[in-house]
Amino acid sequence: MGMSVEQLKELAVSSPAKIVLLVMDGLGGLPAPETGKTELETARTPNLDRLAESSTLGLTEPVSPGITPGSGPAHLALFGYDPLRFDIGRGVLEALGIDFDLQPEDLAARGNFCTMDEKGLIVDRRAGRLPTSKAAELCRRLDGLSIDGVRIIVQPVQEHRFAVVFRGEPLDDRLSETDPQREGVPPRTVVALAPQAERGAIVANSFIAQAKETLADSSPANMVMLRGFSRLPHLPSLGELYGLRAGAIATYPMYRGLAKLVGMTVLATGATLANELATLEEQYPLYDFFYLHVKKTDTTGEDGDFLGKVGAIEEVDGLLPRLLNLKPEVLVVTGDHSTPALLKGHSWHPVPFLLSSPWCRPDGIPQFSERACARGSLGRFSALQAMPLALANALKLTKYGA
Amino acid sequence: MGMSVEQLKELAVSSPAKIVLLVMDGLGGLPAPETGKTELETARTPNLDRLAESSTLGLTEPVSPGITPGSGPAHLALFGYDPLRFDIGRGVLEALGIDFDLQPEDLAARGNFCTMDEKGLIVDRRAGRLPTSKAAELCRRLDGLSIDGVRIIVQPVQEHRFAVVFRGEPLDDRLSETDPQREGVPPRTVVALAPQAERGAIVANSFIAQAKETLADSSPANMVMLRGFSRLPHLPSLGELYGLRAGAIATYPMYRGLAKLVGMTVLATGATLANELATLEEQYPLYDFFYLHVKKTDTTGEDGDFLGKVGAIEEVDGLLPRLLNLKPEVLVVTGDHSTPALLKGHSWHPVPFLLSSPWCRPDGIPQFSERACARGSLGRFSALQAMPLALANALKLTKYGA
Repeated sequence: MGMSVEQLKELAVSSPAKIVLLVMDGLGGLPAPETGKTELETARTPNLDRLAESSTLGLTEPVSPGITPGSGPAHLALFGYDPLRFDIGRGVLEALGIDFDLQPEDLAARGNFCTMDEKGLIVDRRAGRLPTSKAAELCRRLDGLSIDGVRIIVQPVQEHRFAVVFRGEPLDDRLSETDPQREGVPPRTVVALAPQAERGAIVANSFIAQAKETLADSSPANMVMLRGFSRLPHLPSLGELYGLRAGAIATYPMYRGLAKLVGMTVLATGATLANELATLEEQYPLYDFFYLHVKKTDTTGEDGDFLGKVGAIEEVDGLLPRLLNLKPEVLVVTGDHSTPALLKGHSWHPVPFLLSSPWCRPDGIPQFSERACARGSLGRFSALQAMPLALANALKLTKYGA
Repeated sequence: MGMSVEQLKELAVSSPAKIVLLVMDGLGGLPAPETGKTELETARTPNLDRLAESSTLGLTEPVSPGITPGSGPAHLALFGYDPLRFDIGRGVLEALGIDFDLQPEDLAARGNFCTMDEKGLIVDRRAGRLPTSKAAELCRRLDGLSIDGVRIIVQPVQEHRFAVVFRGEPLDDRLSETDPQREGVPPRTVVALAPQAERGAIVANSFIAQAKETLADSSPANMVMLRGFSRLPHLPSLGELYGLRAGAIATYPMYRGLAKLVGMTVLATGATLANELATLEEQYPLYDFFYLHVKKTDTTGEDGDFLGKVGAIEEVDGLLPRLLNLKPEVLVVTGDHSTPALLKGHSWHPVPFLLSSPWCRPDGIPQFSERACARGSLGRFSALQAMPLALANALKLTKYGA
């Protein structure tokens, strides 16, 4: 159930209303065994609770029930793009994650430093989780190689991971990975998965050969593996689709990159949530739609830091009055996925969702939590519906059919 | 999620049970700011509330979340036809709306009278919202023209709107509109959007040229614009699909037309709800399925008449005992869409839905309202599922698979 972006586009009309999409990354949680309460239920959130009472509540499924989403698909869904249809490759995500200015013709891949023995067999797929500083040094040795007119850009990401970008001609991304996903075997070579990708395979394999030579004296990282060959997907922008001037406020590069992918203007901001709020206040007159990203709820969840996540939620609650002062006609507060501290990672659990607007038909439930949202009138629904609902409540969608 | 009509057809079996689908047009509402209660929550509905307690409740999405449906798509969905698949053109709906007996080969369009200046530019797209009586007079001047063997039938609808039907040979409906949707420019000409539609474009443009000539001395309506070229869609009937003898009781032409489209027999009835009930009582032995349409809940909503809508709902509640006396095995009470008095028009909000039958697994919620239905076991679901649920509860669907 749901319309495609193309169908929604046909219904888009302009209205003066503004929409703010506040995304607390990894918001959903699981109850601590001692208290039976989730992070969100443990947090003191008087402002969110008051807002909930006059809002419509529900729980979103980022991709599909039971599916644990990565940040890419989870955000695409929230922005209204079906993640099962619009695929963002791992290489592209890796490049976006380091604020790399990827161009439409660039071919990106995710790289790993690894350790190979003298027989050419992989003995450690992560080269002992190489320190990032060491990886950065190796990246500098590989960066700037040129193969047959194609320039190779290599940038460190974290530990053994790096991003590699092939620039200079449009190379097809239908290429196989070289990581065999286990040790004791040699790395694979890149294989073209379509005839058009032959040239890309040759270039990628040449790069790997040169990298091997360059790293011969290095230890433990004496080899590289590549995966997730991909190019920027073509996504119709929020401007093209709905006529929205959309601004993104996010402190982490990957989220800025995802926002850029859907045509948002990335607004310069500082490192703290208060900085982000200040940016929203300054830029408020200039955009119709704001995406405001809070990262700390996810990082604390990933660290298994239950109380840290509680604190991150309380910080958002404390700053909420500033956001409400701007009086956006539509305010959505949700997460992109769940990151329960108990699981120390992303999870498949549906995500609390709150939509406030003068036209939202309030549920009258005076609490913002997983269980409160489960009782909301939106029920459990696809995150893909968040955008149409926000647009409808901003009176930006006209009638379908007569 | 959901089976197509073709898949459902395979499961259809006969049973003696009768189904009544009571549609309160535009039923869903929004709370009045003073009381926090919607129209349905404000209305005294002891009979509906008592019925709710022994029923299954939920909220339907007529087309897709966030989408405000027109009456056509909203009704098709309730009748079990996917409105994103079965499209009813605006011209056809306009003709159905004036009880015009459209034939399968007829090409219908919606017409507007407009005002053009001496340079041929549109200065008023609605000719000052011409009074209906004046439009009727102009329609008589255009009605009965004949172009190259094709007869042109022109009938007034309301104010500046009229219906035009091209009859005599099957003309393809893939034709562009002539309304440029703004003023200060000339009307467009009709363009064939497929080679097969060339002939239709010629005929339509000739009609427009003749109309222009005929209206030259008229003011302010001196020109016509056409849009929504369409022919009757081919819908498998409820008889073909489920073996239902279906009867429709509706006071407004458009709903009778929609019912006819899906193969219902349109039953003669009077102008009041009591008349409709009397028709139901009289005809009750003759059909397996009744569609009973209540218009007043929508018209009051469109007028922004909150208390009028409350009264219309109470009127239905008052007559409900007569309906219950007939003891239909399955009774569905719902709306086709929401028409909150606060919005003075159709809206995207999900619609209260109640299904009563001996096999319905009651929710035990003793109230019929938006918020009560939000707590119902059906949750928020596609209106497309109303018909399979009604059929199932009437034991008219057999097991799928072994």
